[in-house]
Amino acid sequence: MTTTASPTGPTATTTGTTTVPVEVEEAVRAVARRARVAARALARADRATKDSALHAMADALVAGAQEVVAANAVDLERGRAAGTSAGLLDRLALTPERIEAIAGALRDLAALPDPVGEVVRGSTLPNGLRLRQVRVPLGVVGMIYEARPNVTVDAAGLALKSGNAAILRGGTAASGSNTVIVRVLGEALESVGLPADCVQSIDEHGRPGAVALMHARGLVDLLVPRGGADLIRTVVAEATVPVVETGTGNCHLYVDAGADPSMALPILMNSKTQRVGVCNAVETLLVHADVAETFLPSALEALSGADVVVHGDERTARSAPDGVHVVPATDEDWATEYLSLDIAVRVVPDLDAAVEHIRAWSSGHTEAIVTGDLRAADRFVAEVDSAAVIVNASTRFTDGGQFGLGAEIGISTQKMHARGPMGLPELTTTQWVVHGDGHVRG
Amino acid sequence: MTTTASPTGPTATTTGTTTVPVEVEEAVRAVARRARVAARALARADRATKDSALHAMADALVAGAQEVVAANAVDLERGRAAGTSAGLLDRLALTPERIEAIAGALRDLAALPDPVGEVVRGSTLPNGLRLRQVRVPLGVVGMIYEARPNVTVDAAGLALKSGNAAILRGGTAASGSNTVIVRVLGEALESVGLPADCVQSIDEHGRPGAVALMHARGLVDLLVPRGGADLIRTVVAEATVPVVETGTGNCHLYVDAGADPSMALPILMNSKTQRVGVCNAVETLLVHADVAETFLPSALEALSGADVVVHGDERTARSAPDGVHVVPATDEDWATEYLSLDIAVRVVPDLDAAVEHIRAWSSGHTEAIVTGDLRAADRFVAEVDSAAVIVNASTRFTDGGQFGLGAEIGISTQKMHARGPMGLPELTTTQWVVHGDGHVRG
Repeated sequence: MTTTASPTGPTATTTGTTTVPVEVEEAVRAVARRARVAARALARADRATKDSALHAMADALVAGAQEVVAANAVDLERGRAAGTSAGLLDRLALTPERIEAIAGALRDLAALPDPVGEVVRGSTLPNGLRLRQVRVPLGVVGMIYEARPNVTVDAAGLALKSGNAAILRGGTAASGSNTVIVRVLGEALESVGLPADCVQSIDEHGRPGAVALMHARGLVDLLVPRGGADLIRTVVAEATVPVVETGTGNCHLYVDAGADPSMALPILMNSKTQRVGVCNAVETLLVHADVAETFLPSALEALSGADVVVHGDERTARSAPDGVHVVPATDEDWATEYLSLDIAVRVVPDLDAAVEHIRAWSSGHTEAIVTGDLRAADRFVAEVDSAAVIVNASTRFTDGGQFGLGAEIGISTQKMHARGPMGLPELTTTQWVVHGDGHVRG
Repeated sequence: MTTTASPTGPTATTTGTTTVPVEVEEAVRAVARRARVAARALARADRATKDSALHAMADALVAGAQEVVAANAVDLERGRAAGTSAGLLDRLALTPERIEAIAGALRDLAALPDPVGEVVRGSTLPNGLRLRQVRVPLGVVGMIYEARPNVTVDAAGLALKSGNAAILRGGTAASGSNTVIVRVLGEALESVGLPADCVQSIDEHGRPGAVALMHARGLVDLLVPRGGADLIRTVVAEATVPVVETGTGNCHLYVDAGADPSMALPILMNSKTQRVGVCNAVETLLVHADVAETFLPSALEALSGADVVVHGDERTARSAPDGVHVVPATDEDWATEYLSLDIAVRVVPDLDAAVEHIRAWSSGHTEAIVTGDLRAADRFVAEVDSAAVIVNASTRFTDGGQFGLGAEIGISTQKMHARGPMGLPELTTTQWVVHGDGHVRG
């Protein structure tokens, strides 16, 4: 970290590549220090207290819906004036019905088991020492995410249930909505005797505030960035706090030799089109050469019929039926997480080539194989190095809710700490607790 | 990362604060790329193959003991000429007997269960999808450590057993010994059909090589630095690869009101003097004011009798019996991990003050309480935020071997991924494996 001096003292600090005004760095550190104090109270709270806080938060959001919607209307109006796309405006928009649903998610969280206090391992050692490894909260969790006010509530709820104080930085376009939501949640926390500082927003400090949060080493125990490649790059360059990266999904579906087309086609269409802008949607289809002639024409026709633009290699183009246009694919297509009605398609000579393609281009989120060959399935699972590997099912299943794990804060594509859907246990750490009776080491 | 251009191309890259020559950066990346290839072969190896590799490595070390000892003699001679302390020379020294012991540790590793393939969680979902979370190797693990050739073997063995390729950077003072050891281990690996590149050293590239390893994002899956505060600072500033910090232990022992002196004294002496230069030795003693008069005089006398220098606050100095000198303690004493026959001593008014002192100064490794009061024990465990919290036993028990977990690569003081003794399971990640029968999401 370098500090820029001036006659009146330092004015800005730089870590990595971004310069943050000193007053922002200080304001965010003050927020984090308050969060640490709140986190100690929260760590001592029992499950009943945390669950009643979640219900109070849900009730308060519903009671304050009118105020939240009014603030959201201002955000929406500003977004419209700035030419924000319809899709982004839809993700930003809140209605009384959506607020009911968001509140319902908080009540669902209350029904989930408390991860804190779970004994992960334990034994009595030969010398009589009693040993337990117990889940405890991390402390202070930071979240950086897009302009989606529902994520503000989800993140606050997940952090609370796992005993952590939350510092939230949503997209600037939602800052009006988020400010009201965080105030309402804080009042609800106080109503059950927990500090309002358990949930704080740093939206007012904009992008420099987000970078200051990345620098708050020693004050922030975990930072979860949710967003595009730009955000991830900034976090890698800037963050001195521990990070779990989430949500980059360049997912692949491989249709093996001898795959049953009547299984492969529904899996392909579901993986690509069931929902488009999500990290577990398929972005590249790999097809074994042996089924290129039998499977590809109908697959390309179905994709085209669902308005999916096909970016294919030469062999794919040759397999396209009349009327289906194939855009020539380049390396950029293999690398791209479209998040849109686009798919890259490549014909590969064998399973090894499919695995090589995936190892070269995947973001390590989810890869699926359709095959009837047990050995091919086992080899695919063993050799693909991604958070989730799926045999004969849609990539869309990689999701905390679908896996039966409850709500998730994101899907981790890294190998450390958490991999795949990141729910309540992944928001904790463990502590070794040892009980003796005067034991000393010989 | 910035690149310094020259007429003949870039000559050095800088990430963070250290400049690394381009040829070193490239050489280390080449090592890491070879490690990635080796890691794929190793990930597929079954337990029998890995265990026979460990036995082959043990046999080869014993067979090559003469050559290893000869290389070590050169390292020792250079160390002596450079004025290296007797303690460091002892940690550097290898004898045929020590090599036998190191080989024995490899054979012990072979007897431990294989973490790879362990099913951590699993279920069949209501829709029939079969779900498993399975331990898999991380891939490539880097280790940076001191001039201790036994750690070279330990780290290679732990990485191998957990299915990871290892890139090792030992202290420069041991580079001669390490070079021979790594060659011997590589030959043993090849003798059982595994790539020699599973274990590589980058010692020849010195400190710049270590920094290049910290920069090898995308090639190194985990970096474990073992060393002093300087190394940790460098890693925090430089590392773009995932890191688990280990081995900083500013550990505390708190003697509560009403603690039985006949239990407290042996725990104190064992925690401080059973072995001095280790991370789980006690560095600060906190004493409840109520037992300052009954416990402290005998404790100070015993410490002094064991040649331990006491750095105490004013109240401690007043409690010292005749003939026991108390050096006035400053904040630096509270912050210091002595790793020597020194101890900081402070009298505190109550348990809350003890917890506050620990929260302010501890490195988060191990803290112990001696008490007969159940409520005090529970509060200490609940409020101290360290990797291990011990009631009525020596801090020296925080150790993978003592915990019955087998060999450890270090003791993590961070909250992410691994906390406390870091053994074979902590050198793995998990993968979600899903089996369906044409399942699509509704």
